[in-house]
Formats: sequence, structure tokens, C-alpha cells
Amino acid sequence: MARNQLRRAVIVAVGSELLTPDRLDTNSLYLTQRLNELGVHVRGKLVVGDDRADIAAALLAALPQADIVIVTGGLGPTDDDVTREAVAAAFAMPLEEDAEIVDAIRSRFAARGLSMPEINRRQALVPGGAVVLPNPNGTAPGLWIERPDVVCVVLPGPPREVHGMFDTVVRGRLAPAAGRQGIFRRVLRVTGRTESYVDETASPVYSRWRSAAVPIETSVLASLGQIELHLAARAETAEAAARALDAATDELATVLGRDLVSSDGAALEAVVGRLLCARGRRVALAESCTGGLIASRLTDVPGSSAYVHAGWVAYDNAAKTSHLGVDRQLIDVHGAVSEPVARALALGCRKLAATDYGLGVTGIAGPGGGSPEKPVGTVYVALAGPDERVRVRQLRLPGDRKRVKFQASQAALDLLRRALIRK
Amino acid sequence: MARNQLRRAVIVAVGSELLTPDRLDTNSLYLTQRLNELGVHVRGKLVVGDDRADIAAALLAALPQADIVIVTGGLGPTDDDVTREAVAAAFAMPLEEDAEIVDAIRSRFAARGLSMPEINRRQALVPGGAVVLPNPNGTAPGLWIERPDVVCVVLPGPPREVHGMFDTVVRGRLAPAAGRQGIFRRVLRVTGRTESYVDETASPVYSRWRSAAVPIETSVLASLGQIELHLAARAETAEAAARALDAATDELATVLGRDLVSSDGAALEAVVGRLLCARGRRVALAESCTGGLIASRLTDVPGSSAYVHAGWVAYDNAAKTSHLGVDRQLIDVHGAVSEPVARALALGCRKLAATDYGLGVTGIAGPGGGSPEKPVGTVYVALAGPDERVRVRQLRLPGDRKRVKFQASQAALDLLRRALIRK
Repeated sequence: MARNQLRRAVIVAVGSELLTPDRLDTNSLYLTQRLNELGVHVRGKLVVGDDRADIAAALLAALPQADIVIVTGGLGPTDDDVTREAVAAAFAMPLEEDAEIVDAIRSRFAARGLSMPEINRRQALVPGGAVVLPNPNGTAPGLWIERPDVVCVVLPGPPREVHGMFDTVVRGRLAPAAGRQGIFRRVLRVTGRTESYVDETASPVYSRWRSAAVPIETSVLASLGQIELHLAARAETAEAAARALDAATDELATVLGRDLVSSDGAALEAVVGRLLCARGRRVALAESCTGGLIASRLTDVPGSSAYVHAGWVAYDNAAKTSHLGVDRQLIDVHGAVSEPVARALALGCRKLAATDYGLGVTGIAGPGGGSPEKPVGTVYVALAGPDERVRVRQLRLPGDRKRVKFQASQAALDLLRRALIRK
Repeated sequence: MARNQLRRAVIVAVGSELLTPDRLDTNSLYLTQRLNELGVHVRGKLVVGDDRADIAAALLAALPQADIVIVTGGLGPTDDDVTREAVAAAFAMPLEEDAEIVDAIRSRFAARGLSMPEINRRQALVPGGAVVLPNPNGTAPGLWIERPDVVCVVLPGPPREVHGMFDTVVRGRLAPAAGRQGIFRRVLRVTGRTESYVDETASPVYSRWRSAAVPIETSVLASLGQIELHLAARAETAEAAARALDAATDELATVLGRDLVSSDGAALEAVVGRLLCARGRRVALAESCTGGLIASRLTDVPGSSAYVHAGWVAYDNAAKTSHLGVDRQLIDVHGAVSEPVARALALGCRKLAATDYGLGVTGIAGPGGGSPEKPVGTVYVALAGPDERVRVRQLRLPGDRKRVKFQASQAALDLLRRALIRK
């Protein structure tokens, strides 16, 4: 392509369902990542309904803002799919039926033993002069329209089709004229620390990288039960970016120490799983207020049957005493939500399951059950380990029931993670 | 307000983080629902970065498309918060410091024993002629700018502040001039049926409501493990809409029968919880492939300690035999993933916990562990009830590990739900 560099993109998502309270356009997240890797910055995003005039108006507003406009959605076969018509109108191109596309759609149906419904002919309409982009995952082909100042790419709406077409067709066409420097990302996860602590600790490192030969921009984001560092390196190749990101990650790992959970985006439960595997250790769980969430998170990880032996959800006091051997007196004296009971739960499940580790959790997830001494959000997590020692942490967690459960599960898994890396 | 009706809105979200692969604007979902209730249709949405020229350009593009433009974000105290400046530029209004706002911000800080940082003075800048909207949940006030053809409302970005300000201030100001007919929504959930079955069954009912005095539009959406019917009634008052929605829901409930889980948006686990409560029944769980997910979902519901007694996560064979009394021979003869083992798990946990119901689940969540006879996604769910009968269902579930787990948990909870409504 003989043209200026493509640097700035605008993404236009078409679909009336994207203007209801129930649906968000998520294709733009995937497109943004891929465009960033090509050195293309996303300057703006638009969402419009299935309306010819609105789509055309959005296009006309987007074109002067960008070198690339990517439109997704509205290429289906039904009457309310009008993106083809709107694009043709915006670029003042006539719509013509493409015989090859009709044949291709007919063959797709034939392959499934079906004959093509007449209505699908609409998907073969092409603005005269547009390049047709094949769609390996669906009947609607995409369009590529080139103008001196801008490229407009039109893709279908289903995410599988967007991903497939971008990766197989669009990326290759954009790459020769795309920005020389791509943006490549990495996510570091940290637990057990506040956002401001993480920022203070990491900023001497990441501020230096901001002006390095391969510059890296870092943002610190708090999400539930963890802090994330998002690194974005700007480099000419994926390899150069990876080298810089590796070096920056190493420096950040040094200052963050054991608070760093992962630098490849892995979730805490996956990291704990890897550590248990590597050490040949197994774990059992005795959960009260988390209600099975810790076991469920651990078993979300493929291969977890190697190290998760068994779990107990001891939701009422009788379950704690009769299934896990918690002394009834402990509960009577200290209450079910107490350090001694957490300790007994951890020891109880470890013994019953004959595992290396036992995790016990008891707390008040709310909204009911709180008291002035033990308000909603009071949680005790305990870890019984192979050295017979029990570690206990008391927590005061904010938020509603689900947030308390998740944060308690984070704290319990983190306690286990720290014990495993201490070895 | 003496003006034409406000019917069409455009929502502009400001924030460079919303143009990365990691973040989506979700404020627009809340705003859409609230605007729809006022009879205002959302015609389009825009996302722009923290850039003065881009924000102003977005505003100028939005204004002719809408009677109401709502801008969120970019009202913080730092240098990259430039929405105030951009709005002032777009409307050609001078920015002036508002002494009252400075005082209000100062008091907010004082109330927490802090003195106001100088930087926060920026939040007191107001385009001359704009109405200042108080923000009960933060330091940045909002703005209301009225023109003959359009109202522009500027709100901060944090969701809590957007919700609070819309409900306490903006709604009341918009209502007098808003559309006469609002859109009011209701969600019905259905389990155990395909999308096409639900659509075929429900369409004779919902097509009639499309042209009723209070018209209701219905869309059928498939989500993981359930089908949702989204009803949207257009009416002059919330009461009139509720009456129509009640009547339509009753008719749909009749044709859907026991497949209807809820008509108030309640999740399956909450519906099961209500039924257990109402019947005074308790349940125990023996989970293999779901790994605690069913227990966790049941205990996501406030008050679940009344009916969840205990759960076992029996992830390996030894756990099934030693903790739940599953006969080792059953596993040897039929395999751990089999109808007899599911049955034994259900009976085992019911007996151990002395509950009315016992749910047992065993299956292959993948990606490993499948075989030609029992491919990944093969799951058996079993329910042992007070009548000593055991009901078992065999499932072949598509998707990855997490999807198989969730669908298996849906099937198990639904088995219990159907048993409870049969009484």
C-alpha cells in the first residue's frame, strides 16, 4: 500500500442491542489489542444502532479523525442489517451483487446439506470498488475500502468472526502501512498490599522505564482482592518489546518480592496450582463463609486433580463439629467466627484428607450476622502445613456478600502461596 | 423547562483508559436504563480519550444527533482531567472559579481532618452560565448546560458518583421534558430448554403483546446454561408498565410451565434458596467435577445458612470412598464418572449430613480425562430426595472447563428446583 502511515483508528460498533442496558460492545477490546500491536492507537469508539442514516453519520464523523476506521456488525442477512447500505451511501459507492460471494454462501449451506435461503443474497451485496474480505467462520464477507486519507474495514459482529478475520486477513493488509512501533502489554498481579503501597514501591522502577530505549508505560489498577500493574512497551518488534518487558518485570519482581503473584497474567489459583505441582504437595479445604469458592477456584485450573484432594463446606456449626472434628466447646467459648475455630478447621481437613496442607476459613459474609465486636466482613483464614504449624490471619473485608467471599478466598489462597514459596 | 420533548440521547464517555484493551465504559448501561424509563432513547455512544480537542469534537458531533448529551468522566483534579475545559470550549463559554464549590470541596476534606490540596481547585472551575449539580459522593460537581435544542449534562466518571447524581439530581431535572412514554424492563429466566424451543413456545404470547395497548417488545437471549426473555414495555407510568408486564409474564409462565425459573431476574441459586426456605428443607452437596461451585453459588445468597448444611468436594477417588462412603467397587466397575457413582455421591452426602436432599455431581470438565465413550463434557448429576428416590441426569456439555463446570452446576440446581416445585 503506497500511503502515509496508519497511526490512528476509530472503531464503530453497529447494533441496536448495543444501545440497551444489557449489552456492551466487546469486539473493540480485541481489536484495540491487535491494533496497538501494529502501532495503531485507538483514538475513539462509537456505537450506533441498526439505522442507515445513523451508521452513515457515524462513519462521516469518524473518517476525519482517523487513518483507519473499523466497523463491526450489521452484515447479517435480515432487513435490519443495513451496514452494507450505510457504508455504500457514506462513500457514495453503488451496491452490486457479487456472483462469487453468492456461490460461496451457497456452498457453505450446501456443505451442511441445506439450500441457501433467498434472504442470504443480501450478504453478497458489495459497494462497487470495495475489496471483499473472506470470512472463514461465517457467511458474511468483510469489506476493505481504501481512500487517499483513510482505510475503512467492515467486519461482521460475532466475536469469533471478528477475531478470525482480523487475524487471517486484516492484520496482514494493515501491517505494511501500520505504525513502525507497536504496543505490547504485560500484566503483573500483586496481593496483600494496598494500591498506594504498590505504586510507591514500583514507581522508582517504572518511572525509569518510561524514558528507556524501548519505553514502557505503567498503570496501577486496583481490582477486587489484588492490585495489577499494566505494562505497555512500545517497540518495533514483538521480540524487542518482550526483551524490555522481561527486564522491567525482573526489576519489578525484585522490589515487589513475595507480594508479586504472577507476571504472565496468571490468576492466583493458577499460581498456587503450579507451586503445589512443582513441590508435589496436596491441599484440603474446610470452608465456612467462602462456601466452596476456594475449592471451586482451585478446580477451575486444568490438572488440579493432581493436588486438590478434597474439600468440606462446613456451613453450619453441626457440620463443623460432626464432619471436621471441631470441638463443640471451641465454638461455644470463642464463637464459630474465631481464630481457634479457623485453626481447628485447617487442622481438621488436613488430618481427614491426609494432605500436606489444610486451609480453614470462617467469617461473616453478611448482610446479616454481624455484631459490634465481629462486624460483617470479619474473616479468619488459617493454614495448617506439613511442619504442623498453623498460620492464621484475621481480616476485616469491605463490601457485600460476594465481595467478602472473594476477598476471603484471595487471602486464603495467598496464605498458601506464601507458605509454598517460603520453602 | 420550556422546551421540546427530550427523546434522544447520546452518551459520551471520557477517559484514555477506556481506549485500552482492558477497560469498557459501563456507566452507559446504567444511564441507558434510567433514560429509557424516562422515555428517552439512546441513539448512540461515544468513547474518547483525555484530550481536549477530541472531547470537544465528540461533543460537537453528538449535539446535532440528540436532545440530551450526557458526558461522563474527566472531572478529576489532575492535569489530564480536561472535560471542563473541553465543554467550555465546545459551548464557547468562559471557565470561572466558583467560590461556593471551593468551599464545598474544602469542607469535604476538612470533614476527614485533611486540608484541601491546591490541585483540587481545578474541580471548582465552571463554564460561565452552566448550572452546578451537587455530587453527594465525591468532590467533583456536575454541570448542566442548556441550549435551545439540547441539554448537555456533565458527570464524573466513578460509577457510584454517576448513579448517585443521576438519581438525586439529573432525573428530576430531565423528567418534566422527557418522553411521555418510558421503557420498563423485565427479565424471565428459563432452564433446561434450547433457545429455539423457548422462542417457539413463547412467541405466540409475546407477538400478541407487541401490538397491545401497552406494547411489549421481547427478545430471546441465550446465555450460559439458561435462556433469557427480555421484556420491554412502553408506558406512560411505571405502574401501567408493571400491570402489562405482570399480565404478559403470567401468560408466558403458563406456556413455559416448570421451565420458567424466575420472572424477577433472580438467579437460579436464589430461586432454589427461596424454595428450600419455603418448604423448610435442607440440602447437602457432594461435588466432584464442579469442585465446590454449586455450594459456592448456593451460599452467594444471603440467608443460605438456613438451608445449606454442608458440602463435600470429593475431587479424587479416595475422597469419594473415604469421606462419602462410595463403594470402591462401583468406581472400579463403572468408573468415577458414571451414573452409579453420581447416585452414591447424592445418597452419601444426604445420609452424612442428615438433610432432606443430597446433590451428587461427577463428570469430566476437561481439557484432559476424556475418552471415546466418555468425552470431555460428560457429566452425571444426581438428586437424592426425602422419598429415598434418586433422580439422575446424564449430560454432554460443550465448552471449556469453566463452561462445563457452570453448566453442570446449572443442571444440578435445576434438578433440585424441579423436585421442590413438584411437591
